[in-house]
Amino acid sequence: MNEGFKKDYFLLTQRLQENTRLGGVMGILHWDQEVIMPTGAAESRAEQLGALAGVLHEKTTHPEMGKLLDRLSKIDKNKFTAFEWCNILEARRDFDMATRIPKTLVTELAELCSRAHQVWVKARAENKFSEFSPVLKRLLELKVKWADYINPQMEAYDANIDIYERGTTQKDISPVFDKLKAELIPLIRSINESEYQPDTTFLSGHFPIEKQEALGRKISKEMGFQFDKGRMDVSVHPFCGGSHPTDVRITTRYRSDNFVESLYAVIHETGHGLYEQGRMQDGRDLPVSESLTMAIHESQSLFWERMIAQGKAFCAHYLPLMAETFPQNFNDVTPEKFYEAVNVSQPSLIRVEADEVTYPLHVILRYELEKGLFAGSIQVDSLPEMWNAKMVEYLGIEPPTDTLGVLQDTHWSGGAFGYFPSYTLGAIYAGQFYQSLFEVNSDMENQIKKGNFKHIRSWLGSQIHQRGKLLSVPDLVKQVTGDVLNPESFIDYLKNKYRQIYRLN
Amino acid sequence: MNEGFKKDYFLLTQRLQENTRLGGVMGILHWDQEVIMPTGAAESRAEQLGALAGVLHEKTTHPEMGKLLDRLSKIDKNKFTAFEWCNILEARRDFDMATRIPKTLVTELAELCSRAHQVWVKARAENKFSEFSPVLKRLLELKVKWADYINPQMEAYDANIDIYERGTTQKDISPVFDKLKAELIPLIRSINESEYQPDTTFLSGHFPIEKQEALGRKISKEMGFQFDKGRMDVSVHPFCGGSHPTDVRITTRYRSDNFVESLYAVIHETGHGLYEQGRMQDGRDLPVSESLTMAIHESQSLFWERMIAQGKAFCAHYLPLMAETFPQNFNDVTPEKFYEAVNVSQPSLIRVEADEVTYPLHVILRYELEKGLFAGSIQVDSLPEMWNAKMVEYLGIEPPTDTLGVLQDTHWSGGAFGYFPSYTLGAIYAGQFYQSLFEVNSDMENQIKKGNFKHIRSWLGSQIHQRGKLLSVPDLVKQVTGDVLNPESFIDYLKNKYRQIYRLN
Repeated sequence: MNEGFKKDYFLLTQRLQENTRLGGVMGILHWDQEVIMPTGAAESRAEQLGALAGVLHEKTTHPEMGKLLDRLSKIDKNKFTAFEWCNILEARRDFDMATRIPKTLVTELAELCSRAHQVWVKARAENKFSEFSPVLKRLLELKVKWADYINPQMEAYDANIDIYERGTTQKDISPVFDKLKAELIPLIRSINESEYQPDTTFLSGHFPIEKQEALGRKISKEMGFQFDKGRMDVSVHPFCGGSHPTDVRITTRYRSDNFVESLYAVIHETGHGLYEQGRMQDGRDLPVSESLTMAIHESQSLFWERMIAQGKAFCAHYLPLMAETFPQNFNDVTPEKFYEAVNVSQPSLIRVEADEVTYPLHVILRYELEKGLFAGSIQVDSLPEMWNAKMVEYLGIEPPTDTLGVLQDTHWSGGAFGYFPSYTLGAIYAGQFYQSLFEVNSDMENQIKKGNFKHIRSWLGSQIHQRGKLLSVPDLVKQVTGDVLNPESFIDYLKNKYRQIYRLN
Repeated sequence: MNEGFKKDYFLLTQRLQENTRLGGVMGILHWDQEVIMPTGAAESRAEQLGALAGVLHEKTTHPEMGKLLDRLSKIDKNKFTAFEWCNILEARRDFDMATRIPKTLVTELAELCSRAHQVWVKARAENKFSEFSPVLKRLLELKVKWADYINPQMEAYDANIDIYERGTTQKDISPVFDKLKAELIPLIRSINESEYQPDTTFLSGHFPIEKQEALGRKISKEMGFQFDKGRMDVSVHPFCGGSHPTDVRITTRYRSDNFVESLYAVIHETGHGLYEQGRMQDGRDLPVSESLTMAIHESQSLFWERMIAQGKAFCAHYLPLMAETFPQNFNDVTPEKFYEAVNVSQPSLIRVEADEVTYPLHVILRYELEKGLFAGSIQVDSLPEMWNAKMVEYLGIEPPTDTLGVLQDTHWSGGAFGYFPSYTLGAIYAGQFYQSLFEVNSDMENQIKKGNFKHIRSWLGSQIHQRGKLLSVPDLVKQVTGDVLNPESFIDYLKNKYRQIYRLN
């Protein structure tokens, strides 16, 4: 038995590497499906994805994997490096997640999610929440049951949040979201009531798609995206996927009457892409090197999209390029004017179209509803009414239909409860990271003005990207910012920025 | 045990379906690698391919698969339909192929092939056969050993041919190739000595790539390629790949100074693609529906490329489209002139650039060398000399370097011996199929002249594509043509065509 655990660890890494590689293959299949697959192949692709998912499940839950993990769990943690121990814990978590749920429940959930998606598509198209509510009720029941198998000590909603945001629970989120709500509702009202509204007319016009693409590619590259280790393509919904840190694939979509939307989608996905391309050099086929959580991933995309690219310095630096690309639109546009136009804030019905000030309210609304659903204090049937009431309370607008309200998101139909908070946690972390970066590099704005993103990139790299899963989110945030999850920086950032733009007191 | 074999067959099909689907995934990985993958991902992709190949090997050789096959092999063949029995035999063959070779030999071969490819690339670049010869010798030794494990009753070269061309051996090939050689060498000499040479000057010029692409896409579509179940893209070497009959992907490459090469590559790959898209509707995830052999696949691409698209009727039908696409080149070109120009024949050093008359000699040369190598009558060290002597004898030209001679093909460096004959067997079958089709449809030329390919497509579909692996090649050829493998039709076709073009006797 002497040092036998080293051999066990080696065997474990071999299994983990295989799983990671097969996971990369899955990434290619998904990317291909969204970007390039012929429409007629939908059915065969679903079967291929199913076959590969089956293999991955077999590998993850292999009895030999269980035996290895049981033996390794008995070894003193101090015999392993942090890198090694992280891989053991991640494998343990995956194994437990995959083996704790009875097969009947797995099957029922998979079938229900597949059906629920169809039902939701139809209900949304026909504006009939009552058609969706029965499957939504059943989904909630199953997800509560699921949570009880996964982690009986946890509240069911916390166990669901834990899939996306490990280590963060309602106890952490609720006070932070309450604080945010208290600050943002009056800010949004002031913005809305302001007599000054930025001029955005010059952002309308005709923007040839090849020019948009060249512009996006150039800016993405200058931000640091490595096109020899990634691609940029077109899909219905922008995303960042791929198969490996050397194969990171971002997408955007184009509208010839609006270039800003597409460009900022490129920048957003580039933020995700830089995280993936920037992962630690060692262990790229092991869990330890993977991105930490959804919120930390989102903090990277929002950091670049909102805090950097919608900032004054960035707008000033890229204005000449915009003017060169679209001369008819940018004739007499000042950096200030461009900056204000890309930061227009206005309450709107659809979450994915919301700006950075109103977005958190969309998320908080959903969080509060999910929380109530799991606690039993909210019934599915009352969701449309509660949704609309909260929209009025938080954003001052009422959805005229459920299609534009409670039926707008795909998440619930896929059984993804507890996912929404990640978006706004990401925005909060981005604010904290920005603040910390500014503290070590007060010249940052000047660097951005010169188009120099090197320091930002290398700081994000060393502080976040290269750390993989070595630290928990709270530990990472503590190490990087010296603080816990705290919305102050984000709130200050929003208040300063939007008070100035909208000339508020 | 009563009817238990039905359950066994059902279990077998489940395993086969899974393997087919994973094979489709492999197809996507390969396509992605050749067409779209970032260059920096080469290493991670190799590892992903390795992981998936490992899974497929595990699945193919799974002990449970062996037990199922053992039980099913004991059942009376008449209890199964031809469809079912075919799946059982194919699974048996794959299982045997994968389990008969000792793991040490599998590993040694895989490693040697990988190394041999690198060595060959360098040797070809530096024109040094002596650098390649040691690995080639070792590859041959291992392939003889391999053949002895796979099928000790077969000659080693036949066992290698059998991978690509099941049921066809040297005994079938040699007399056919001898006959072909005897007829083609004098024909090539006459063509070469003819005073009449077609005018091809109008095929030179500048051909914008977007126009070439639109042209290729249009013709491919009119031939019957379904773009909702397939794609057309660009790769270094044209190929037909994909993941399923509903996801067939052809590629071509473009040169702005030559459109004919690219267009005929599109047509060639469309021929392959129609085979894949035209497979039987049942059992698309089972071996029975798969394409039969390399030569039958090649017969389809050559049928369309050479016999149809290089024919008079096709040239006449598409001349107006060519003239519309490239007006500066086709001003005063007659159908006859266009037809002659795309059928120019001239001995050349490189197989892949050869025309339909000289191509078979390139193949026969390689076949004779491979045959001698396996029989021990030819030594590796004498290959360059023998290669060049045969080039002079068959085509009247001598390669100035080994790079342009014995080192030109990648096949041997990958351990693919016995692959070359398929190309010319495919051309011969195409000739036989064309003859048979003409017998049932003497109006064919008129239909082609009108751009109507429906009858051709449906005949190829019912006679070949939809038959999958239900028949052996000899049985298929017998049923479709009433004859065995016979080069007469191909020879007659070439003689008639080229005597007329080159005004011979």
